[in-house]
Amino acid sequence: MEGVELEICSRLSPEARFAPESGIVEVVNAAREQENLIPLWVGEGDLPTPAFICSAAKASLDAGETFYTYQRGIPELRQSLAAYHSSVYAKPFESGRFFVTGSGMQAIQLAVTCVASAGDEVIVPTPAWPNMAAAVQIRGAKAVSVPMTFTPAGWHLDLNRVISALSPKTRAIFLNSPCNPSGWVAGKDILKAVLDLARSRGLWIVADEIYGRFYYGEGPQAPSFHDIADPEDPILFVNTMSKNWAMTGWRIGWILAPDSLGQVMENLIQYSTSGVPVFSQRAAVVALQDGEAFLADQIDRARAGRRIVLDGLSTIDRARFSAPEGAFYLFLGIDGVTDTRRFALDLVSATGVGLAPGTAFGSGGEGFLRLCFARRPDHLEEAVHRISSHLKAL
Amino acid sequence: MEGVELEICSRLSPEARFAPESGIVEVVNAAREQENLIPLWVGEGDLPTPAFICSAAKASLDAGETFYTYQRGIPELRQSLAAYHSSVYAKPFESGRFFVTGSGMQAIQLAVTCVASAGDEVIVPTPAWPNMAAAVQIRGAKAVSVPMTFTPAGWHLDLNRVISALSPKTRAIFLNSPCNPSGWVAGKDILKAVLDLARSRGLWIVADEIYGRFYYGEGPQAPSFHDIADPEDPILFVNTMSKNWAMTGWRIGWILAPDSLGQVMENLIQYSTSGVPVFSQRAAVVALQDGEAFLADQIDRARAGRRIVLDGLSTIDRARFSAPEGAFYLFLGIDGVTDTRRFALDLVSATGVGLAPGTAFGSGGEGFLRLCFARRPDHLEEAVHRISSHLKAL
Repeated sequence: MEGVELEICSRLSPEARFAPESGIVEVVNAAREQENLIPLWVGEGDLPTPAFICSAAKASLDAGETFYTYQRGIPELRQSLAAYHSSVYAKPFESGRFFVTGSGMQAIQLAVTCVASAGDEVIVPTPAWPNMAAAVQIRGAKAVSVPMTFTPAGWHLDLNRVISALSPKTRAIFLNSPCNPSGWVAGKDILKAVLDLARSRGLWIVADEIYGRFYYGEGPQAPSFHDIADPEDPILFVNTMSKNWAMTGWRIGWILAPDSLGQVMENLIQYSTSGVPVFSQRAAVVALQDGEAFLADQIDRARAGRRIVLDGLSTIDRARFSAPEGAFYLFLGIDGVTDTRRFALDLVSATGVGLAPGTAFGSGGEGFLRLCFARRPDHLEEAVHRISSHLKAL
Repeated sequence: MEGVELEICSRLSPEARFAPESGIVEVVNAAREQENLIPLWVGEGDLPTPAFICSAAKASLDAGETFYTYQRGIPELRQSLAAYHSSVYAKPFESGRFFVTGSGMQAIQLAVTCVASAGDEVIVPTPAWPNMAAAVQIRGAKAVSVPMTFTPAGWHLDLNRVISALSPKTRAIFLNSPCNPSGWVAGKDILKAVLDLARSRGLWIVADEIYGRFYYGEGPQAPSFHDIADPEDPILFVNTMSKNWAMTGWRIGWILAPDSLGQVMENLIQYSTSGVPVFSQRAAVVALQDGEAFLADQIDRARAGRRIVLDGLSTIDRARFSAPEGAFYLFLGIDGVTDTRRFALDLVSATGVGLAPGTAFGSGGEGFLRLCFARRPDHLEEAVHRISSHLKAL
């Protein structure tokens, strides 16, 4: 049997065969049956999707909207996305630039397909959510890490390192701000410099601003490429309904692209998932149109959660972290802990607190653990308490 | 603006830039506002998803099942898929071999990723549903057509042509039986020969048996690789909930693979769409468990539709076709019509009858048009009448 397995696996494409197992999912899978679990490992809140959003999907099902639909998304959703962006960024957006995808992850996969062929390179500042680099690798291209540096005052991206990492094979720069996992937020100067680089070197930017509304600095949201870019700039924005509206399980995302890419996007959607259920899209329309109050509560909740974990962890001498400027994660180093994968497995097994090991997030993240604080305050307090006790007992 | 568009598009990967527009969607898009439409162009019936299936999704939403879930699919759905296969093919199937995907199309895309890297080749007998070859091309690999031959007694696949098309770069043979669009069904001898070829040459088979239950020959369903293969044979079965249970709009499919590919499949799902909504999967469970009566009606309806179009079109002298052995399409040639794309555009504009042009289905299909007969009998009768009148008026 072992021989058969090896023989079968040897027939796989190298990209499929050697795709990395998600270091986050590995720990989650190891503890699915764990009692007393406080799961802070994945990027997901603890509230289900609000009923007013679910109702739209149910009504659509009742109306028999169970047929194939527009590859680019239903017009109502594309218009709602345009109106949402126009409102948040205080400038007009055309609905024709929005393409509905079957998750933010699929938006990334399609963006990677747009920008890279086998053998090409994509710059990825790290630590980073691992799925971007994995999607690049599965495409047969290479994710080139540019490690950011940690200081207690915040994470730092050195642009000279980005420029040094460019090669004739570079096709795109991935920029995720606010950053999962580090909480880093790119300032307008960084965004401007990266955009100039892309414009002048013929590169794409894949912009992941999924956490843009979860921002703890000055202003209504994190600085965005939307503040400085033109519609025909070489930027593919990847985004998702998941975080803002507690819709992780719905698998709806979108790409915002230059208008001229319309047919290309339609084709790539056709040949990957062939669209997103109409009834799910109806729910997304309602979330965008009527979901601002819920989103405001979510942001308040994350801000309160952030305060709890910052205060709680600051009493632990061995804890090493900077206050996240955005997103809803605290990226935590612990003096003396070098194998964070082992530590995460032990921690969840001993205490029920689930953290994601930094080993999952690439170069520069190995010594850290990711904690999601978009959760109930009492659970966060209890989690900090358990982590503290666990460290004392070590 | 035109210059900017060209410049932006020149930054795209060649695979994205030159992905083919679906020749089916082109005609559909051209006539979305058409009055009096009888749409027989896409592979979709005219019944919405039955209420008992929708109810399961609604109940799941009410229960708050709106979070991330298992990448491979919820255990209940994988078990239901195994039970369904065990029942249909009268042999045991392990649930661990089933992987839930966000559509049959995504199952194909993931299968292509498994078997091919850039520069590799995949054999595709044609005429064929165009999306398989397109997915191969977007992967940077090459779809090698093996044209089948039409005879009024049925379509024919010459195995010597398949063998001649093999090269050192060949990684897989795609076999779709019952065939969309031709209605061809591979006999057990063909299946056996292809399996022997794959076993001996180290190739994969990507088996699309989506229409296996829609079979008009002897026996309860079309001959299947399941009748002759072992669980560890190099076959990736791609399938969908869409056709059997009128769930085209739900985007749920599955891959049935050798057991040893579990972690590979989990990874490929993680880095493409990261799973399928739980509430949709609940509906699929109910469809599989309680949907046999509905499916039997669907098959009866297709059989009746097939009879209507066969009888109706046989009165048209210029019509050229063989009776489909399976699936729910009639693939229709018309003497004197060579540009079927033009003909399809004219036909829908003049009569409201939507057919898919054979040009969309690759080598050997150019002279034909695809008609879906999984539709209301009165609409099919009217469609045949309009086609007949249109031809007389030409």
